[in-house]
Amino acid sequence: MLGAYVENVRKNTPLVHNITNYVTVNDVANVLLACGGSPIMSDEPEDVEDITSICGGLNINIGTLNQNSIKAMFLAGKKAQELGHVLLLDPVGAGASALRTNTAINLMKELSFDVIRGNISEIKTLALGSGTTKGVDADVADAVTEENLDEAVAFVKTFAKEAGCIVAVTGAIDLISDGEACYVVRNGRPEMGKITGTGCQLSALMTAFLVANKEDKLPAAAAAVCAMGLAGEIGFRHMKPEDGNSTYRNRIIDAIYHMDQETLDQGANYEVR
Amino acid sequence: MLGAYVENVRKNTPLVHNITNYVTVNDVANVLLACGGSPIMSDEPEDVEDITSICGGLNINIGTLNQNSIKAMFLAGKKAQELGHVLLLDPVGAGASALRTNTAINLMKELSFDVIRGNISEIKTLALGSGTTKGVDADVADAVTEENLDEAVAFVKTFAKEAGCIVAVTGAIDLISDGEACYVVRNGRPEMGKITGTGCQLSALMTAFLVANKEDKLPAAAAAVCAMGLAGEIGFRHMKPEDGNSTYRNRIIDAIYHMDQETLDQGANYEVR
Amino acid sequence: MLGAYVENVRKNTPLVHNITNYVTVNDVANVLLACGGSPIMSDEPEDVEDITSICGGLNINIGTLNQNSIKAMFLAGKKAQELGHVLLLDPVGAGASALRTNTAINLMKELSFDVIRGNISEIKTLALGSGTTKGVDADVADAVTEENLDEAVAFVKTFAKEAGCIVAVTGAIDLISDGEACYVVRNGRPEMGKITGTGCQLSALMTAFLVANKEDKLPAAAAAVCAMGLAGEIGFRHMKPEDGNSTYRNRIIDAIYHMDQETLDQGANYEVR
Repeated sequence: MLGAYVENVRKNTPLVHNITNYVTVNDVANVLLACGGSPIMSDEPEDVEDITSICGGLNINIGTLNQNSIKAMFLAGKKAQELGHVLLLDPVGAGASALRTNTAINLMKELSFDVIRGNISEIKTLALGSGTTKGVDADVADAVTEENLDEAVAFVKTFAKEAGCIVAVTGAIDLISDGEACYVVRNGRPEMGKITGTGCQLSALMTAFLVANKEDKLPAAAAAVCAMGLAGEIGFRHMKPEDGNSTYRNRIIDAIYHMDQETLDQGANYEVR
Repeated sequence: MLGAYVENVRKNTPLVHNITNYVTVNDVANVLLACGGSPIMSDEPEDVEDITSICGGLNINIGTLNQNSIKAMFLAGKKAQELGHVLLLDPVGAGASALRTNTAINLMKELSFDVIRGNISEIKTLALGSGTTKGVDADVADAVTEENLDEAVAFVKTFAKEAGCIVAVTGAIDLISDGEACYVVRNGRPEMGKITGTGCQLSALMTAFLVANKEDKLPAAAAAVCAMGLAGEIGFRHMKPEDGNSTYRNRIIDAIYHMDQETLDQGANYEVR
Repeated sequence: MLGAYVENVRKNTPLVHNITNYVTVNDVANVLLACGGSPIMSDEPEDVEDITSICGGLNINIGTLNQNSIKAMFLAGKKAQELGHVLLLDPVGAGASALRTNTAINLMKELSFDVIRGNISEIKTLALGSGTTKGVDADVADAVTEENLDEAVAFVKTFAKEAGCIVAVTGAIDLISDGEACYVVRNGRPEMGKITGTGCQLSALMTAFLVANKEDKLPAAAAAVCAMGLAGEIGFRHMKPEDGNSTYRNRIIDAIYHMDQETLDQGANYEVR
């Protein structure tokens, strides 16, 4: 039962430092407040070590990276790691540009992340780019479906083992693995793909969940995925015919605001493989 | 009938690269998703050429320009042009500062835009600043009204001819011309002026419409203007007494989310001069 | 009666230049439009002097400061001061990092602010950091309550006198003082703390209120605080059971959109000490 992990977030008010893109940053801040956490944003190299020091987790999202923020990612990451904080990487657009791919790979080399969370294309890029010579099946399809699920689970497990951290591949079906077990999550709605930033929000949420549940990182990461997907389901139920993606965005964050142990226990739709 | 252009956007899922301001960027992303397009944001010089290469159009908005993003605008613009992508300029604040005016003018000199879209003050600044010695009436009034419409249409046609691209002047009455024909659009509501970023959203929308309708750029640009204005009308009908500009913002994007051929064909309010 | 100050904002349409963080900037722009003002954002050193020159007030918020924007803050601040504009400082995160604390203190040294607005921790940091050797009670508690109100009022008055400007400490109870009188405001709701950026919005609102009421800066600042808190109360009344912090954000800005003299006169809850 994953519901207890959301209660721990509300009890612990985890402070999360976000070096993230300016597109979805407001929603990232509001979703962290909605789940019971507290957000801080800072991407200036001279500022980030101080800021990350007072937090419990660091969420690095390369969605609108620049030379300055890249420096900040490494500085903050090293400081956070030194302090034993939770470290998450959201490699937005890895594979779409050399700078993004290389930055993500270099961050993986220099830092020990607790979680890497992305879509299947981003994660495949990292799996290939990290120079693996065996095991990581780069031919895994570009969307995880019931048909290719076995293959996808094997891919995520293998990459998690190689990366030495939890890997979360999110999409229509979400896979979260530490290399041993793999949570397969079937919450969410396709309409969530029409809102910018649900992935960014999930990365922030997951960081908060891990900070508040440090002894149970894998199920806590899976709980964050279930909570976000379930919020998408709950928010959708409140949609009126004239509502579209902008209102849906609000309703999902609102549903996170009301998410509690009972709701998550009843609504989480997952299996462990 | 302009409705077919919106259907083409939904069929083609145009990928639009936005170098845009951080004020309204989230709404820009959501409106692109709402219309059936797909947004990418990147303003780091080292990143933009790769990113723009995988897109079909580039939307340059100078709303919060800085030295770094200005470099990125030129680099991305040249690459996009080389690849035959749709190029749009939104000269936010041209006339309000030397840096904005000069940046817009230099972008116009070095790049061949498909569309320049702004308010009447911004467009007048560019018309004057581009060094025209005849034809462009700098005395055109600061708002397009039914009273000065003939003069305004002539001004926009002349400037479009000189600039060698579509010019869209938006306000209470919108004018969109390629130098020959001029669409006069009377959709929209005055309350839209109380929301930040409806202009920025329109520029992004227009870029997507042109990418998906490359053979019909002028009517596609007019269709985007009608769609945005009509969304303002539809969204307004759903407003409750306690709703204000923040809710209205959501309702407009929601209305774009539901915009289809029939709705646009029935609601578009325009004439061609 | 503070209601007249909101009417003056609607009559004067104060143009406010914001150098502010990218987290809450969209809400800052929309709240300025909601109250009858007009926002401009610019944080590029080469751009800010021109931009601030056409405005009536400058709102400096260090929420996501960087080396470039810090330069811009000083340049814009000096130009705004030279032109007699309203100057407000929102020292977001002062005390959380050396860069933030030092930047805020240096801004206070080089510029004559009309208002400094922050939470009690930020204001305490500045009171200590500015090198006061007497009078400023650094032991004031970390939240203003009915129990420590006398002490907190004395602290704010003393710091306002030393800083030579209006100081506004906002929280469950808000204190606004010019060193002589102190407005004690009891509007607002605790749920406002679950939305990112209500403080940033208030700073922008306050700047607009002062620009439109230059002869009555202290009551105008108090009026802005009452208006924001009252908007929180009004917005909350329209919340449905499924609504959360994201919808609440919209409702508060919507309530500012409808705020008028009568509403503020009837709803403002304050005393002067």
